[in-house]
Amino acid sequence: MDYGKIFEDAISRLHAEGRYRVFIDILRNKGAFPNARCFAGHNGPKPVTVWCSNDYLAMGQHPKVIAAMEEALHDVGAGSGGTRNIGGNTHYHVELEHELASLHGKQGALLFTSGYVSNEATLSTLAKILPGCIVFSDELNHASMIAGIRNSGCEKRVFRHNDLVHLEELLAAEDPDAPKLIAFESVYSMDGDVAPIAEICDLADKYNALTYLDEVHAVGMYGEHGGGISERDAVAHRLTIIEGTLGKAFGVMGGYIAADQTIIDVIRSYAPGFIFTTSLSPVLVAGALASVKHLKGSQEERDGQQARAARLKTLLADAGIPIMETLTHIVPVMVGDPVKAKKISDILLTEYGVYVQPINYPTVPRGTERLRFTPGPMHDDAMMVELRDALVEIWSRLEIRRAA
Amino acid sequence: MDYGKIFEDAISRLHAEGRYRVFIDILRNKGAFPNARCFAGHNGPKPVTVWCSNDYLAMGQHPKVIAAMEEALHDVGAGSGGTRNIGGNTHYHVELEHELASLHGKQGALLFTSGYVSNEATLSTLAKILPGCIVFSDELNHASMIAGIRNSGCEKRVFRHNDLVHLEELLAAEDPDAPKLIAFESVYSMDGDVAPIAEICDLADKYNALTYLDEVHAVGMYGEHGGGISERDAVAHRLTIIEGTLGKAFGVMGGYIAADQTIIDVIRSYAPGFIFTTSLSPVLVAGALASVKHLKGSQEERDGQQARAARLKTLLADAGIPIMETLTHIVPVMVGDPVKAKKISDILLTEYGVYVQPINYPTVPRGTERLRFTPGPMHDDAMMVELRDALVEIWSRLEIRRAA
Repeated sequence: MDYGKIFEDAISRLHAEGRYRVFIDILRNKGAFPNARCFAGHNGPKPVTVWCSNDYLAMGQHPKVIAAMEEALHDVGAGSGGTRNIGGNTHYHVELEHELASLHGKQGALLFTSGYVSNEATLSTLAKILPGCIVFSDELNHASMIAGIRNSGCEKRVFRHNDLVHLEELLAAEDPDAPKLIAFESVYSMDGDVAPIAEICDLADKYNALTYLDEVHAVGMYGEHGGGISERDAVAHRLTIIEGTLGKAFGVMGGYIAADQTIIDVIRSYAPGFIFTTSLSPVLVAGALASVKHLKGSQEERDGQQARAARLKTLLADAGIPIMETLTHIVPVMVGDPVKAKKISDILLTEYGVYVQPINYPTVPRGTERLRFTPGPMHDDAMMVELRDALVEIWSRLEIRRAA
Repeated sequence: MDYGKIFEDAISRLHAEGRYRVFIDILRNKGAFPNARCFAGHNGPKPVTVWCSNDYLAMGQHPKVIAAMEEALHDVGAGSGGTRNIGGNTHYHVELEHELASLHGKQGALLFTSGYVSNEATLSTLAKILPGCIVFSDELNHASMIAGIRNSGCEKRVFRHNDLVHLEELLAAEDPDAPKLIAFESVYSMDGDVAPIAEICDLADKYNALTYLDEVHAVGMYGEHGGGISERDAVAHRLTIIEGTLGKAFGVMGGYIAADQTIIDVIRSYAPGFIFTTSLSPVLVAGALASVKHLKGSQEERDGQQARAARLKTLLADAGIPIMETLTHIVPVMVGDPVKAKKISDILLTEYGVYVQPINYPTVPRGTERLRFTPGPMHDDAMMVELRDALVEIWSRLEIRRAA
C-alpha cells in the first residue's frame, strides 16, 4: 500500500487535464476596491484591478460595515468562544437573525458559519427528518446543495436546468404521499441565469412539495430591500426555506436560512453542522447586520451594479468578445478550453494588471470553461475600456474566434 | 403528507426528553472577560461570569489580536469576497498557513472556515481518494469527524475510547494491503482525557495505517509553542495529519489541517467543503495569525491556565462536588440527568450570575449529562470561591449526592 503514490497520482491527473489550481495571492485596498495588490510571481505587491470578486456591491469596504465591526471588536473581542448553545450565542447573532427573517418575510432565521454549511446542514437534516423524502434537484445546483442532499441519504431526482416540464414529469412519477422537496437556486452564478420561481412554486403546490431556494447570488442585489429574486418576483411567501449568504453582496462572511419558526427550530436542534461548531465571530455578525440594514434601505448600490453590468456587456459585445447572454449582474465570457482560459487569465494578470480567475471543471462542466466578470458599482468606465482593449488584444494574439 | 406535524413532533421529542436547547444571549466585556453581559429573561443586560467558554486563554481579547484585526479591517476590509481560488486568497491566508505548518513541524497547512469543516472535508475527501480505505475511529470522536467518515462512504471500524488493545484487534482483522486511517483526538473535550498518541502511532506503523489527529482542544495550550499534545509528547512528526482550530485557544474563528505538501495539495484540490466556499475573512485570519505567533513565544497563558484549572479542581473536590478526574484544563462535573443539569445551570445563571451551559445528549451520551467548566488564566480566586459556594448551596438545595 503506497499512500504517497496514490496522492501524487491524484495531483498529476489535475496537471494533465490543465486544471491544477494556483491561488492568486492578493490584498484588496479598502476604500479603493476593486483596486488591490497582487503578490504572485514578482517581488513585492503589484497593483491589480479585481474583476472576479463576489463582494458584488463593495459592501466589504462600506464605512457603516467597517465601523460596526470595529465597534464589536472593541466591545466584545475577536471570537465568540463557543457553539451557539455553549457560550457562543451573542446579542448580535440574535439581532441579525431577526433582521434576516424580516428581510425575507419569514418568522425566523438561522445563522451558519458559511453558505456552504447552511446548504449542507439544512438539506441533509431536512431530508433525514422527513422519512422517505425525495429531493428534486436542479442539475446546476451548487456543490454544497449536492453535498447536503447526498449526505441525507435520501432519494434524489435531478431535473434539467430550469426545465419545468422535466420537473413536473419527475414529480408526477412519485407516490403522491411521499414527502417531497424541490431544491434550486434563484441566480445561477456561473451562467447568470434566473429560475422561474413562481412556476416552480406552482408545481410544489400541485404536488404538495416543500421548496428550498438558494439565493446566495441574489440577496442584497435584487428586490426593493435586497431580499433577492424572490422579493423582486413577490414570491418569498410561497417558498418554504430561503437560503442566503453574508459573504457575497453583504460583503462579510457566513450563511443563513429563513423559514417558519418550527422549521428553524428543527434545523437549530438537529443539524450537526449547526450544533457542533463555533458560532460566527460577533465581529462578522456586527458587520453583516450593518450591511443588511443598509441595503434594506438603499437602492443606490443595486442600481449602480445593474448599470455597470449593462455597460460592460455592451462594451464587450460590441467588440466581439463572446459574452454569454444574462439577465443578471454576472458577465461570463465563454472560452471552452481549460488551458486557454488559464492562459488568458495569466496574460491579463501579468501584462494588464487585470485579475479574473479562469473557471474550470468541477466548478463548470468540462468544455464550458470560461472567464466570469462581476462588475460592480465601483468599476468605472476607464477600467471597463481597459479591460475591453486587453481582451481584444489577447483574443487576436491567441487567435480565438470572436463573436459574430 | 402533513409536513408541519412531522416537524412539530421532532421538536416535541426534545421537550419530552428535557433536552430542548435554549440559547443564552450574552455579550462578553472585552478586556474584562470572563465578565460578560447576559440578555436572557430580564430587561436589559445583567452581569455574568462566563465559565464555559472555549476561548480558553482569553486570546479573543488580547491586545495583539485586536490590533491585528483592526489593521486588516482598515487595510483590506470586511470579507474576502470569494473562494480561495476565485478572488478570496489573501496574503494573510498564505502567511497563516506557513505559520501553522511551522507550528506543527509539517510541510504545509490549509485553512477552512471552521474546525468542523476541516474535519468533515478532510476525512471525507481522504477516504474517497484512497480506494477501499477503512477508517478506524475512536468511539468518542467529535460529530464533525463522524460526519466526514460517514460522508466518505468508506468502511468504518469504531474502537473503544483510547483502547489500544481493541484498536489493534480491529487493525489486525483487516487485509494488510487495504488502505487504513486511524482518526482520533488528543484532548477529548467533554471528558478532558488524553489519547495515547505515541502508542497509536506505533500501531499505525505496525499496520501501515495513516493517522489523523484532532487537536482542537489542545492547540495553543500544550507543547512549548502551543503545538498541542503532539508537540508536548514529541510525536507530531509521526502523525500524517494534525487538525486544529482558530476558534478556541487562539480566540478567533476557523479551522485547519497540517500535513505534508502532497496531502495538503490533494485536500486543497479535491475537497468540496474547501473549494466551494468563501474563504475566511482576512480580518479573522489576521487576528489568528497574531494569536498563533504570540502563543508560539509566550508560556504565560498556558501556565496560567494550568494553575487556575488545578486550583478549581482542588476547590471543588474539597467541597465534595463530583468533578471528573482529568489531566487537562477541562473540569467536568458529572450530574447524570438532563433535567437536573439544566436546573443547576438555570439557578447558577439567574441567582448567582454564573454562566455554565448544561451538556446534554447528543453532545455527551445519555445518562452522563454534566456541567463543564473551563477555567482560564483570567478566572481569579474570588470567582472560583463564589462558584464553589454557589455549587455547594445548589447541591444541598436540590439534594444531589456529594462526592466522598
